[in-house]
Amino acid sequence: MIPEEAFRSLTVQTDSKLVMVVIDGAGGLPMRGKTELEAAKIPNLDRVASKSVCGLIDPISTGVTPGSGPSHLALFGYDPFQYEIGRGVMEALGIGLKLTRDDLTARGNFATINQDGIITDRRAGRIPTERNREICGFLQNEIKGFEGVRISIYPGKEHRFVILFQGQGLKDDLIDADPQKDGLKAKGAEGVSQEARRTAEIVNGYIRRATEVLKPFYPANTILLRGFSKIPDIPTMADRFRLRPAAIATYPMYRGLARLVGMEVLETGEALRDEVATLKNYFNRYDFFYLHFKKPDSVGEDGNFKTKVKALEEIDWVVPSILALKPDVLVITGDHSTPSLLKSHSWHPNPILVYSKYIRPDGVRHFTEKDCQRGGLGRFPAVDVIPLMLANGLKLKKFGA
Amino acid sequence: MIPEEAFRSLTVQTDSKLVMVVIDGAGGLPMRGKTELEAAKIPNLDRVASKSVCGLIDPISTGVTPGSGPSHLALFGYDPFQYEIGRGVMEALGIGLKLTRDDLTARGNFATINQDGIITDRRAGRIPTERNREICGFLQNEIKGFEGVRISIYPGKEHRFVILFQGQGLKDDLIDADPQKDGLKAKGAEGVSQEARRTAEIVNGYIRRATEVLKPFYPANTILLRGFSKIPDIPTMADRFRLRPAAIATYPMYRGLARLVGMEVLETGEALRDEVATLKNYFNRYDFFYLHFKKPDSVGEDGNFKTKVKALEEIDWVVPSILALKPDVLVITGDHSTPSLLKSHSWHPNPILVYSKYIRPDGVRHFTEKDCQRGGLGRFPAVDVIPLMLANGLKLKKFGA
Repeated sequence: MIPEEAFRSLTVQTDSKLVMVVIDGAGGLPMRGKTELEAAKIPNLDRVASKSVCGLIDPISTGVTPGSGPSHLALFGYDPFQYEIGRGVMEALGIGLKLTRDDLTARGNFATINQDGIITDRRAGRIPTERNREICGFLQNEIKGFEGVRISIYPGKEHRFVILFQGQGLKDDLIDADPQKDGLKAKGAEGVSQEARRTAEIVNGYIRRATEVLKPFYPANTILLRGFSKIPDIPTMADRFRLRPAAIATYPMYRGLARLVGMEVLETGEALRDEVATLKNYFNRYDFFYLHFKKPDSVGEDGNFKTKVKALEEIDWVVPSILALKPDVLVITGDHSTPSLLKSHSWHPNPILVYSKYIRPDGVRHFTEKDCQRGGLGRFPAVDVIPLMLANGLKLKKFGA
Repeated sequence: MIPEEAFRSLTVQTDSKLVMVVIDGAGGLPMRGKTELEAAKIPNLDRVASKSVCGLIDPISTGVTPGSGPSHLALFGYDPFQYEIGRGVMEALGIGLKLTRDDLTARGNFATINQDGIITDRRAGRIPTERNREICGFLQNEIKGFEGVRISIYPGKEHRFVILFQGQGLKDDLIDADPQKDGLKAKGAEGVSQEARRTAEIVNGYIRRATEVLKPFYPANTILLRGFSKIPDIPTMADRFRLRPAAIATYPMYRGLARLVGMEVLETGEALRDEVATLKNYFNRYDFFYLHFKKPDSVGEDGNFKTKVKALEEIDWVVPSILALKPDVLVITGDHSTPSLLKSHSWHPNPILVYSKYIRPDGVRHFTEKDCQRGGLGRFPAVDVIPLMLANGLKLKKFGA
């Protein structure tokens, strides 16, 4: 990895266009002898792989299974161990909240507490989502803020919600206000630093008030908050790489992640074709595009091998429209593997292809894990993808004389 | 990379002989389907590759195009981000100056300044090299030093020169005495640290004196200085690796770089055969040899594919004479790629072969980018070549018990 100071002095703005296509959860594991990519008919991906240099990327580090936050940060060129995105922030991004550097977020559960202050059910009997919405509406109406801090509550699924604290001087070095286990006493948030104590008092004041007004809503008669976090103080891609970056993604979480690193998030439709149409419409306005295709991950997490194969084939259909725009550098890869076999994200490296005028074709003919493993790029960490794209776009100056 | 302290405790001096052959700018990009190495007839390199373990090395880090300084430091086993070699030092080495740790160097331009102190031409109309020599001779005669510091000026091409300040306590944390743009006021050097202020005063005093005496030499009536630097405080290869290293190179810059890390620089002739004869003559006297072949880089920078192919073929002819010396470990690689297609250094990894008794042959039959990519070493950073050579020479002890 290039040290940050060195990086800034090497980048140069040019007209070349870079496109990064992220197939969420692309990589897989064999079931009946083939991975999802091996089972899929992906002639267009195979064709562009044949004209590209290929390899395998580790999302984070050997053996590490990433969440969407760190895996995307790495693909965007940021060390995911240096810049951490808290749980609260990820949940807030997931429901489409636009956060400023002042905002403090947390994940929340409605829960059941008894007269002695003991948590008897951390999930309040998994109340229905509809009931959650009603309670959140009630709470929001009852308590709009606390000590000058504006507080907003956003319902999630079943007993879950996201909470947003907006005000000056809020800190996020707080220990969870959640005992994490039934049968323990409810506990308030605790400030780690001296400066975080005021934030803890506000949070705990809110929890007490909420518990008072929630009495009639048994079993949802208290709230548990965890994952207090603010957005990391992260340099923008414009600042760090001299790029004018834009994001095309349909899910709020990925749009939010892109916004965190200063990408312009473009309005787009739900279908793959809509996303590619958006790329075409804005192709002249930016010099870096992040194009996110979500489906292979979602169906991989359901353990649905056949549907994942189909999702990959659907992505294959739109590849020619992307190539038709003649990007100077096109990268197609995944943020992490989501093998149907595991029904979850995994640590396995993902195939990557880099298509540009300045690559050495490597004889790879198929965009699969096994073929790309023999590619000219070998195996390398995802955080090095951006430097490689910048180099191929002739956007990096020579280091030293 | 092995941490420095660990390294020192692992190395052990033995009689085994290590030879590192650096083909400057070896790697390329395909033109009409083949890279320069693929187009070249290199049966001897292919034969030794067949008996070696092969791979690809990144000069610095994925995507980074290096200058000769950092790429050689990495090959010599030094982290190029830790040890930076300034522009002034590189220029001074390039013209063959032997620098001590006290010497301060800078690159210079003759330039044109108007009555109001505005730079009207940073290159003084690109005066002919011959005129440059005359002016340097005159200046050297007029000003031999300043406040006890000896100052020497060495002409380069056209308007360029190298300047050397020799004295006690000179610092190199100076901001350039060069506005970098026509139409701006000439500015003096600025010391960054308190200790550098005296150095800045000496530099600026010299610039003022030079500008006074250069009046008759319009358009070359002032000087601009940039890239102030001293040689980095770098441990020698003897100290760090317990090697007795020698360098065989014809160009002053590479001889200078070798001297920076404490190699003995051997006198040699211009031809490849002369360099190999020097290797033979001194083979018993040292245990590490750096053998540098410059031509593929020079002709690659001219964009001359055919001449680069020929330069590689010429190197192939001398390979048997190197093998005949029976080195215990022979490495053949490049410091960076210089694709004729790009007419410049590039970020692409270079093929490497490691020939020793203790390698696992990997089925690679050709010394090309594509074949070595399938080699047993995979792709790894150049800074790890020295540890690998030491290991194969049985010069590294077991780490831990």
